Amino acid sequence: MRLSQFPLNTLKETPADAEIPSHQLMLRAGMIRKLAAGLYTWLPLGLRVLRKVEAIVREEMNRAGALEVSMPAVQPAELWQESERWDKYGPELLRLRDRHGRDFCFGPTHEEIITELARNELRSYKQLPVNYYQIQTKFRDEIRPRFGVMRAREFLMKDAYSFHLDSASLTETYERMYQTYSRIFSRCGLDFRAVQADTGSIGGNASHEFHVLASSGEDAIAFSTGSDYAANVELAEAIAPAQAAPAPSENARLVDTPKAKTIADLVEQFGQPIERTVKTLIVAAAKDEQDAQTARPGLIALLVRGDHELNSVKAEKLPQVASPLRMATEEEIRATIGAGLGSLGPRDLPIPCVVDRAAAVAADFSAGANQDGKHWFGLNWDRDLPLPPVADLRNVQEGDLSPDGQGQITIARGIEVGHIFQLGTKYSQAMNAVVLDDAGKAITPTMGCYGIGVSRVVAAAIEQHHDERGICWPAPIAPFTLALLPMKLGKSYRVREATEALYQDLQDAGIEVLFDDRDARPGVMFADMELIGIPHRLVIGDKHLDDGKLEYKGRQDRDMQLIELHQAVPFILKQLNAHTGLSDLS
Amino acid sequence: MRLSQFPLNTLKETPADAEIPSHQLMLRAGMIRKLAAGLYTWLPLGLRVLRKVEAIVREEMNRAGALEVSMPAVQPAELWQESERWDKYGPELLRLRDRHGRDFCFGPTHEEIITELARNELRSYKQLPVNYYQIQTKFRDEIRPRFGVMRAREFLMKDAYSFHLDSASLTETYERMYQTYSRIFSRCGLDFRAVQADTGSIGGNASHEFHVLASSGEDAIAFSTGSDYAANVELAEAIAPAQAAPAPSENARLVDTPKAKTIADLVEQFGQPIERTVKTLIVAAAKDEQDAQTARPGLIALLVRGDHELNSVKAEKLPQVASPLRMATEEEIRATIGAGLGSLGPRDLPIPCVVDRAAAVAADFSAGANQDGKHWFGLNWDRDLPLPPVADLRNVQEGDLSPDGQGQITIARGIEVGHIFQLGTKYSQAMNAVVLDDAGKAITPTMGCYGIGVSRVVAAAIEQHHDERGICWPAPIAPFTLALLPMKLGKSYRVREATEALYQDLQDAGIEVLFDDRDARPGVMFADMELIGIPHRLVIGDKHLDDGKLEYKGRQDRDMQLIELHQAVPFILKQLNAHTGLSDLS
Repeated sequence: MRLSQFPLNTLKETPADAEIPSHQLMLRAGMIRKLAAGLYTWLPLGLRVLRKVEAIVREEMNRAGALEVSMPAVQPAELWQESERWDKYGPELLRLRDRHGRDFCFGPTHEEIITELARNELRSYKQLPVNYYQIQTKFRDEIRPRFGVMRAREFLMKDAYSFHLDSASLTETYERMYQTYSRIFSRCGLDFRAVQADTGSIGGNASHEFHVLASSGEDAIAFSTGSDYAANVELAEAIAPAQAAPAPSENARLVDTPKAKTIADLVEQFGQPIERTVKTLIVAAAKDEQDAQTARPGLIALLVRGDHELNSVKAEKLPQVASPLRMATEEEIRATIGAGLGSLGPRDLPIPCVVDRAAAVAADFSAGANQDGKHWFGLNWDRDLPLPPVADLRNVQEGDLSPDGQGQITIARGIEVGHIFQLGTKYSQAMNAVVLDDAGKAITPTMGCYGIGVSRVVAAAIEQHHDERGICWPAPIAPFTLALLPMKLGKSYRVREATEALYQDLQDAGIEVLFDDRDARPGVMFADMELIGIPHRLVIGDKHLDDGKLEYKGRQDRDMQLIELHQAVPFILKQLNAHTGLSDLS
Repeated sequence: MRLSQFPLNTLKETPADAEIPSHQLMLRAGMIRKLAAGLYTWLPLGLRVLRKVEAIVREEMNRAGALEVSMPAVQPAELWQESERWDKYGPELLRLRDRHGRDFCFGPTHEEIITELARNELRSYKQLPVNYYQIQTKFRDEIRPRFGVMRAREFLMKDAYSFHLDSASLTETYERMYQTYSRIFSRCGLDFRAVQADTGSIGGNASHEFHVLASSGEDAIAFSTGSDYAANVELAEAIAPAQAAPAPSENARLVDTPKAKTIADLVEQFGQPIERTVKTLIVAAAKDEQDAQTARPGLIALLVRGDHELNSVKAEKLPQVASPLRMATEEEIRATIGAGLGSLGPRDLPIPCVVDRAAAVAADFSAGANQDGKHWFGLNWDRDLPLPPVADLRNVQEGDLSPDGQGQITIARGIEVGHIFQLGTKYSQAMNAVVLDDAGKAITPTMGCYGIGVSRVVAAAIEQHHDERGICWPAPIAPFTLALLPMKLGKSYRVREATEALYQDLQDAGIEVLFDDRDARPGVMFADMELIGIPHRLVIGDKHLDDGKLEYKGRQDRDMQLIELHQAVPFILKQLNAHTGLSDLS
């Protein structure tokens, strides 16, 4: 493509309201423009990238035997009422009313619509399993859309839905989708992790999120250095330390600590090792733990080591704890325990406790004494106070043992770009989808669903692949593979002739070339090509043409190299092959 | 593709609510399913066709130098208020409100959004001309959606918008789009006509509609047998007859016609030749023709020959006539003229008249006498009554002279699948889009817009290409090119082996094969393949394998022919080449 036929819309300045690199660079490179909050127009350059991601997704879904369909974006309220999501979904669901006063929504997802299709089209076990997908514009009315297309209101999504006679079949398709997603993100040239995930409000059983690793990611992911274990930090199990509690070596003593309100104070003022401190967090207890006489909600104490963080998802799942999780107010604490925050501890505590696995093997530890301005030092379980029930209560952290016993936990930030669920029969049951099995018995099919945020993949790729000069596209999703930059095109007949010939040769070899025929200054050409992230560049000028040479530079190479003009095509093809890295995927 | 991996959703019965062949066949073939009024899910078979049409459109738009973008479907009301269409568009515009109470619409078209983009991105004459396009889901809240995807509410559209410094540049792009559209519909294998069209409410200058000819079409198109003249019947000029009025040969006489209320009655009861009768139609006059004394709207008479039809578009454009056109009520007529419908005529008529070109050269004609139950016979202009102002007032009809003087008019029905407009500065002016010309002066760019109803093309193709057994796809948009049908696949090892080998060979040759591996009865296979319209079919069975042969039949061939098994691939390739018909397009 010639730039005269494919004008760039690059910007020199970083737009003020773009906070993260991908948003800034997509605006600066002229990939997108904002129409309104969370609504973006894709310009030609951006759309080329989006279409490449879309094509990879489509190829791999087809390869996995999924069937492409296209469902309406506008969905009738009646179906959402059948699944009971019309009322439950909340304001992210963009509701609308047609000219006849009928209620519809702009689909944020299509479980209801595919289940409607399935209950009409699927009659027999012979038609299962089946996996339908589409690549389609969705709308979610985010309260605060931000980060450009990363969290937009209108976005391009691949959503797939499978139907099965039994969970064994669902598991098989689920695993195939897991592999398919891995191929998709590998082919896009992304460093990603498949992590165990909470199924959230969609319900169901197994669930994995696919995250592109990037420091700007909204999610924290724990993964093992010694295995392929990976999980959302919220869900990663913190296993018990390998060693039991050491034998006590200190006596328990009550210490005046008037100025110690936090664990950090204890460490600083009294030299207590942080891993030998215990934090006491007070939350509302589950209903059946209420104080029967006062009808006040009961309280429960959760104990974690001073250097650990309470994991609210895990805490909420304890049968003793109220759901949703609610921290007790200072007033409630003082009324029940007689001391304030900063002086709480497990010894002589008048409410039930649960202790984290790591805190349960602490020895000679310090904790509040439930008297203002006092702490116990040198406490030991069993000797000084009974060991409460033990549970996994905390977030994993760097250096923890991996839950699978292999290696240690590392924590990285990730951007969720895909999510696969085992949905079960939530929708098929609510909407009365049945098929007949081979004995003629009606069976409610079990379902899986599988999403990829196609437009978000583009932004995530930039978050992972950029530098101070701009985007560094992975070759498979780059808008063009090679920039062809002639020096003084308007003045040198020889440069023009050589560039035109090479442009033709490169195209004939199937290479996607962006030929900068603007006759712009070299600095402008280089800056534009680096900003928009073209992986390879060739520069043709009189200086080296004398020797029959031209300059090559990879987007992230430090130095350019001189190559033979007549060897340029095979040289570039060799570079491309070296960078695809797909040998393990065929 | 194997049918075991690509299940059909064919129906034996024609769904009751489908009125036209394309709607019936798309449902029966399992291409689409209705979700709600005007909302359809595209099943895998239908989507393959839609994607083929989409790909042809994209290739040709790219070839024409247009730049693909993707604008949001959800559009802010503010922009529609700037163009003043928010109030004017009416209930077809699906309006919606987001969670913050801001007004938006689901875009039925994107003039406002592209103009917003242009006013931000286009600054200099050097950036013009430019032609942006997108292929996108649109929504129009039709009051009575019908005919399946032919007139759906949600539909896939290619819309393009060009910006120019001057009208010469606009004309150049307009002509390129005219050629591009011709290529697109030719490549889709469709018999179409580009017709001059009314620009309707979008405004502007030149405009052409592209119609696929089909008897079920909603529009009547007049085209010449002797040239490429074609126009919507509403707009086609009815030129004056070549001959002047013959000399009078009868005397004018007042005749009692108590039972003649219509032209047909005059012809039947009195033997008057229909081309020598004149109809008098009374409509409201323009404002300045109002009766100054009574302030009642004035009336005006429009005269056409008894065998001609009044063209309301032409009538409405007369300066003497009220717009919108309104037929006078019987009460108004009686109050003003003193006679009722059925006895009206130009002689002694107390209101102004305009006469059609053909009626103006009638001689010895009959018309009402403006007295109930009486007609004048043998009237002649000038001799018996003055000739009123003459204008083109009627619809053209079969056999008329073509307006360009070459050949005669033929009338066919068409389905509008594309429309190109010269918009002018309507939007750029309203929304203050300006660019600087080479002298630094601010210029309001002039615009063109160019639409194709991509999903409607699919339905139109079926209207034009079907028979009593199903769809007969033009090869370029067929979901598959060839059906491979083995007889008794489950029982004959030899058939299986030969079919599998041939399947591989056909695929290797780049042919899109649908391999029916269901082991169904021959009748079921044949009926399904004819219903879904696969252009070519091969049948492999033991009967002919003995002689190394198999059966070939084209979808519309009357008879099958035996061909050599080992010659099957070259034979099919030859059939495909014979049917592409694109030699004139390269």
